[in-house]
Amino acid sequence: MIAEIISVGTELLLGQIVNTDAAYLAKNLADLGINAYFQTVVGDNVNRLKEAITIAEGRSELLIFTGGLGPTQDDVTKETVAYHLQENLILDDTALANIKSYFELSGRKMTENNRKQALYFENGIGFPNRNGHALGTFIEKGEHLYLLVPGPPKELTLMFDNEILPFLEKYLGGSRQSLVSKTLRFYGIGESELVTKLDYHIKSQTNPTVAPYAGDYEVTLRLTASGTDENSCVALLSEKTKEILEIVGDYYYGEGHNNSLVKTVGNLLKEQHKTISAAESLTGGLFQSTLVSIPNSSDYFMGGMVTYHESVKREVLGVPAAIVQEHGVVSEACAMAMADRCREIFQTDIAISFTGVAGPEALEGEPAGTVWIGLSQKGKNTKALKYRFMHNRTGNRERSVMQGLDLIRRSLLE
Amino acid sequence: MIAEIISVGTELLLGQIVNTDAAYLAKNLADLGINAYFQTVVGDNVNRLKEAITIAEGRSELLIFTGGLGPTQDDVTKETVAYHLQENLILDDTALANIKSYFELSGRKMTENNRKQALYFENGIGFPNRNGHALGTFIEKGEHLYLLVPGPPKELTLMFDNEILPFLEKYLGGSRQSLVSKTLRFYGIGESELVTKLDYHIKSQTNPTVAPYAGDYEVTLRLTASGTDENSCVALLSEKTKEILEIVGDYYYGEGHNNSLVKTVGNLLKEQHKTISAAESLTGGLFQSTLVSIPNSSDYFMGGMVTYHESVKREVLGVPAAIVQEHGVVSEACAMAMADRCREIFQTDIAISFTGVAGPEALEGEPAGTVWIGLSQKGKNTKALKYRFMHNRTGNRERSVMQGLDLIRRSLLE
Repeated sequence: MIAEIISVGTELLLGQIVNTDAAYLAKNLADLGINAYFQTVVGDNVNRLKEAITIAEGRSELLIFTGGLGPTQDDVTKETVAYHLQENLILDDTALANIKSYFELSGRKMTENNRKQALYFENGIGFPNRNGHALGTFIEKGEHLYLLVPGPPKELTLMFDNEILPFLEKYLGGSRQSLVSKTLRFYGIGESELVTKLDYHIKSQTNPTVAPYAGDYEVTLRLTASGTDENSCVALLSEKTKEILEIVGDYYYGEGHNNSLVKTVGNLLKEQHKTISAAESLTGGLFQSTLVSIPNSSDYFMGGMVTYHESVKREVLGVPAAIVQEHGVVSEACAMAMADRCREIFQTDIAISFTGVAGPEALEGEPAGTVWIGLSQKGKNTKALKYRFMHNRTGNRERSVMQGLDLIRRSLLE
Repeated sequence: MIAEIISVGTELLLGQIVNTDAAYLAKNLADLGINAYFQTVVGDNVNRLKEAITIAEGRSELLIFTGGLGPTQDDVTKETVAYHLQENLILDDTALANIKSYFELSGRKMTENNRKQALYFENGIGFPNRNGHALGTFIEKGEHLYLLVPGPPKELTLMFDNEILPFLEKYLGGSRQSLVSKTLRFYGIGESELVTKLDYHIKSQTNPTVAPYAGDYEVTLRLTASGTDENSCVALLSEKTKEILEIVGDYYYGEGHNNSLVKTVGNLLKEQHKTISAAESLTGGLFQSTLVSIPNSSDYFMGGMVTYHESVKREVLGVPAAIVQEHGVVSEACAMAMADRCREIFQTDIAISFTGVAGPEALEGEPAGTVWIGLSQKGKNTKALKYRFMHNRTGNRERSVMQGLDLIRRSLLE
């Protein structure tokens, strides 16, 4: 089964809204094991919509239309598809009654054009809209299936989850396999290097498939297995995961579509009952803000300082003036002193420090992107590591935070 | 001129990412007065990409491709378009040197597949990528224009704003009138309220056009004037700006496509030679990190504290224990004490504090979104204001930062 999503709406062509509907439907189609090779966006225009339908019929079996089911004169999807198929639309009495009572209750006059929202294919089926008024509808004709769903995301997602997904699963039932996916997450390796190292697994991929994606300073691999049942898929995924981690396991920090490095670190801190604080210069609070982005981070995060100005490093945090004079603030000695003083002041098990050059300008003769990260831990020697990042100002700061999180993760796993 | 955006990426067809690139480009095309009747999404597949190109050539003049410019074997856009056009790709020495030095400096091995990111059309032009490695490129051939831009939104938007937009404006220049745009920025008013208040100006718009956009906790209006020359456009824009600010001037904080509330505050602090520090609880360093996102923020930002845990508020920052006991940490008294103590410790002209409930859970009987912001200023009475935001955890924290910036802006303008 090959599907194509046809999004109807001039607002999409003008960039006034982002096409989240297409992503939502596409993900659900993928989960159903339905392939999709193209998506199309077309405006609220009868002739161009007809053109899009004809093209899609030539390359796809299931055509899914989003948008253009509303009451206004530029909502043309239902009428255009019906005319194209030479199929009748009929009124759904329940839907019409709902529209009428909505207008009565809100004290507004129901204009005649609202009636068309209750139309569905006479030889097909209608799907109720519990977050709005426009019915969804489906019809099979010739070699094609046509599914029309409303454009407003709230209406679409509720209708799809509650009505259309069960319908499609049943409708397509016999013909499809189980599909199970998992996401492996890596930090500290670029996409191109990961892909090169896993060349064999990516090129020879059939089942599971292995798809790399570059995220924000991290890379993920999406493994998707198909089989007759879920258990066989899970087994295939486990085996492939093992093979992959034998090669690039050193960069692997966890799995899960919604996982992140900061969540992984937070969970480790919680498990080990350890507390953390931070002293930040170039990152300016971004590390701590990233920790706080996770609910219940108060279980392990106490607080910290942003020592942006050099005088604050000395006078408030208490880095010895001699260190700043002799080594500068972009130095191993300063990073270590910052971490040690921070741990003392905030009385935590771990303290991390960031000092360096965010850019765009150089500092103390060090180029933009030079960063020292210090780590002070109870019962361990304090250390500081030097990095040279090659992003812009924002990127260098964000990357420093990721690197800091990874340092802590590795240290907690030691 | 009719344009068509062709988004290349299997991850779009699988619904793993949302096509924000298409919306971004579509909005910019609309602003340039370029029509668009279709958008296409196609996977990382040479034959289907060729099919999409052929269809698009039949109905559009400017074809814009996003994605598929990276180093991996499933990045096929540049090669496929070049083959289709029978045009040569050549290496850009600067881009290649940048890629090499990036790998050298980051201590990683540059694999051979990275070279192709530095390719551009021999008979066209290349656009540098300042947030990544893959060059953009443009070529005119026969009746069509082909523009290829990278898929990662950070790379695309920077390249488009800084390189491609000026290029397109100049390239299309001869055939069209002068177009001048300006962006007015507002904080503290919702899009629907702004639109309602400016109903007349938006509905009666012809020249300049007035387009509202809802940004992150702010609203912008993009005014675009057309005329025979730039001067007449600028005059039209000034007049319309005056009319608009008479109505909603109280929410206006500045103009400019790349402006922001934090830049406005930074400039005011610099002009008035004032220094600032911050004590943050629920925002967790986000306010300070936002200040630091602006280059040269060290001119006015000294540093601050993240007092996440209650004990840190007392023992490190020095909020009197009696205040915490009597009023709790989500209180006017705590916010004021935090700001005062912060200004004392960091010796700044202004100190701001944030304490409240980020969510999702309530705290001290206050619902998520309850936030106190304190402001301590040299020679003025310290004050604290209470807000109730209705976003999620991240949103409540981000909105608090924006509100804090606006408080400081208004205070500096008093």
